[in-house]
Amino acid sequence: MSDRVAIVGVGMSKFGELWEKSLREITLEAGMYAIFDADVQGKEIDAISIGNMSAGRFTGQEHLGALAVDMGGLGNIPAYSVEAACASGGAAVRQAYMSIKSGEHDVMLVLGCEKMSDVSQSEAMDTISVASDMDWEGMFGATFPALYAFIARRHMMEYGTTDEQMGKVAVKNHYNAQFNPWAQFQRALPLKVVMNSGMLADPIRVLHSSPITDGAAGLVMCSEERAKEFTDNPVFVDASTQATASLALHDRKDICTMDSVVLSSRRALERANLSIEDIDVFELHDSFTISEIVLTEDVGLAKKGEGGKLVDEGITELKGEFPVNTSGGLKARGHPIGATGVAQIVELALQLRGDAEKRQVEGAEKAMAVNIGGTGATSIVHILGR
Amino acid sequence: MSDRVAIVGVGMSKFGELWEKSLREITLEAGMYAIFDADVQGKEIDAISIGNMSAGRFTGQEHLGALAVDMGGLGNIPAYSVEAACASGGAAVRQAYMSIKSGEHDVMLVLGCEKMSDVSQSEAMDTISVASDMDWEGMFGATFPALYAFIARRHMMEYGTTDEQMGKVAVKNHYNAQFNPWAQFQRALPLKVVMNSGMLADPIRVLHSSPITDGAAGLVMCSEERAKEFTDNPVFVDASTQATASLALHDRKDICTMDSVVLSSRRALERANLSIEDIDVFELHDSFTISEIVLTEDVGLAKKGEGGKLVDEGITELKGEFPVNTSGGLKARGHPIGATGVAQIVELALQLRGDAEKRQVEGAEKAMAVNIGGTGATSIVHILGR
Repeated sequence: MSDRVAIVGVGMSKFGELWEKSLREITLEAGMYAIFDADVQGKEIDAISIGNMSAGRFTGQEHLGALAVDMGGLGNIPAYSVEAACASGGAAVRQAYMSIKSGEHDVMLVLGCEKMSDVSQSEAMDTISVASDMDWEGMFGATFPALYAFIARRHMMEYGTTDEQMGKVAVKNHYNAQFNPWAQFQRALPLKVVMNSGMLADPIRVLHSSPITDGAAGLVMCSEERAKEFTDNPVFVDASTQATASLALHDRKDICTMDSVVLSSRRALERANLSIEDIDVFELHDSFTISEIVLTEDVGLAKKGEGGKLVDEGITELKGEFPVNTSGGLKARGHPIGATGVAQIVELALQLRGDAEKRQVEGAEKAMAVNIGGTGATSIVHILGR
Repeated sequence: MSDRVAIVGVGMSKFGELWEKSLREITLEAGMYAIFDADVQGKEIDAISIGNMSAGRFTGQEHLGALAVDMGGLGNIPAYSVEAACASGGAAVRQAYMSIKSGEHDVMLVLGCEKMSDVSQSEAMDTISVASDMDWEGMFGATFPALYAFIARRHMMEYGTTDEQMGKVAVKNHYNAQFNPWAQFQRALPLKVVMNSGMLADPIRVLHSSPITDGAAGLVMCSEERAKEFTDNPVFVDASTQATASLALHDRKDICTMDSVVLSSRRALERANLSIEDIDVFELHDSFTISEIVLTEDVGLAKKGEGGKLVDEGITELKGEFPVNTSGGLKARGHPIGATGVAQIVELALQLRGDAEKRQVEGAEKAMAVNIGGTGATSIVHILGR
C-alpha cells in the first residue's frame, strides 16, 4: 500500500461550446492527452474514476465508466462514475486517491466531463437545479443564481461587500484566462462591462456567473513507488479531504459561511502539516464571483467579511501574494460541471511542475484546490505539493 | 489501515411501488435500519457511499450524498454517489471497501436507492436505456429486453436452452421471495403462468423480466478492528473485484459470455483463496431470467451452455446444492437499480449470520454476489465470509 499518491500526467479538452463534438469524444480526448503526458502505456492503467454530474439528462448516456474503458481500448479494467453535484470532479479525484491508497489499484486514469450545450438553456438550468434541495429550494423556483444572490446580498449587508468587488473577481479571472489555451473565454473583460451586465438575480449579474460549458479533463494518478517510472517531475497529493453542510441554504446558521469549506480546508492543512500562508497558488470554486470571495474567507486567506478587500488589494491576482484561479477559474475557463474539479487539479499540477507558461506562478511548491457542490453542501479540498 | 473490511449492520426499505414515499424517505429508512442493526451511534459513521443510477431523471434530485448526510442528521461527514448503471449498488459497496482499506474512513454507511415509479413506463424505459451504448444501441430503439433477447435467442440456438428453463428461473425466484418480507412479489408463480405471459421481445416474456421497483438498502461497513465494538457476528468481505466488457453487445466475441463476469468472479475466488464449490449461497443479477442462466455459467457453477440444465436439476433452488437468489433476486425481490447491488449484500450477510429465517441456507459460510450493469459491460463481484 502506498502512503502518497502521485499525479504523473494531465490532459484537457478545449473548454467551450463544442457543438461539433460528443461527450465521448471530448472525454476520450482529455484522457488520451493525460496518458500521452504521463508517457504511460494504456495497458498499465488499471482502473478509471470519472466525475460527472448529469450525463443522463444532458446527453442521454450514463454508464460512462464502461464507455470510457471501451472507447479508450483499455481492456477489461474497472471503472465507475462519481457524482457530488458541481464537486463531482473533485470526488472522482478523491475516490481515485483512496483506491490507490487502498492498494486495490496502482495506476489510474481520472476523468471529469460534462457536455452541457446539447440541451436548451432552460433544460440546462433545470438539470443544474437538481443539485440543490429540490423539495425545499428548486421546487419553489430557486435556481442557483437565486440562491447565490441570497449569499451575495447578505454578504453586502453584513460586510459592505460591493458590486465592484464582485466585478473585480470576474475581471481578474478573465485576465488569467487569456494565458490558458484551454479556457472558454480567452479575453480580458473591462470592469465597466461587468458592472453594466444584466442582472440575473439581483445582485448577481450575468458576468458574475460561470457559463454553460462543454469540456473534459484528465489525470493519471499512481502510487508513489510507480511514479518514478513515468516522470522525473511528479506532483503529490499531500492531502485529500471532504466535508458536508446542509443541502438547503436556509438550514445554515450563517449563509455567508460554508462550514463544509471551513472544515475540509482546515483538515487538509492539518494533514499536510501546512498553514494557509504556505500555499503558493489556489483554485477556488468561483461558480459565481461571490463564491470566490466567500471561499477566500473560508479557507483562511481573509477574515470573514474581508474577502472583498482582498480583491481590492490585488492579493489574489496572478502577480499577487496568493494567486487564485490562475486558470481563469470557473468564470472564464468555463464550468463543465463534472470536469471542473479535475481541471482544477490539472491547473495546479501544471503550476507545480513549472509548466503553466504565461500564467506561471514562479517557484510554486504547494497548491490548494477547493471544489464545491451546490451552495457548498459538498466541499472537496486537495493540497498538492512537489 | 485495515486489511479486511467487515459488515456489521444491514437494513432495507420494503421493495415495491411505493407511491406514498419519496426517494429521501426510503433511503433514510434503509440507512436507519442498518444503523440500528449495527447498534452504532450516528456520530461514529464517518462517511457515506451511495449507489444510484438516475435520481436526476427519475426524481429530479441529485447530490444525494449531501442529501443523505443532511436527512440523517449525520453532521458534516463526506458523502458521494457512485454510478455504474445497474451495478451502481455494487460499485458503492466496492468504493466503501476501498475507502476503508485506504485508512481514510473507518465506519461507513453504504446506501443504494432508486425511485422508479414516479415517472411513466416509457420515461422509465428511456432512463434505463441510457445504461446501454446509446450511440450504437439505444438510439436505434434497442431497449434492454431487446438486447437480452439477442442473448437468449443465441443461447437457445447454440445450447438448446428452452423457454421452460428460462421460466423455471422465475418460478424458483418467486418461490424464494415468499419468505423475504422486503420482496416486491411475495408469492409463488406457477410455471404455466410464466410460460403464458406476453412476449416483451421474443423470446423474453414479461415474467422473465425484473420489474420497475422503488426501494433502498443499507449496510454499515467498518474496518476489522472496529467490528468487534458493534457485533459478535460480523461478516467479512473476503474479496471485492470489478471488470468491464464492451458497452455494446455487438462488440463481443460471444454474446452468450460476459467476459466481465468471468474475469471478476475468477479474480474474486483467487483473492479469497476459494473455488466456486466452496461458495454456499449466491446472489446473481437476474435482470432477466436468461441473465441468471448466463451468470451461473460465467462464475463456473455450470459449463458454458449448461446453465439451463442446472435449473432443471434443481441445483440452484433454496434446498439445492448451490442456492441462487434466495432473496427472490431482481425478478421477485424487485430491481430498484441503484439499490440492487446493496440488497444482494444485505441478503448474503443475513444468510451468513444465520438471520435469513425461512429462506436460511443452513450452515452457510461463504457467499458470492454478482452485480452487473447493462448487458454485463460492468461486473462487480463480492465474496463474503464469516
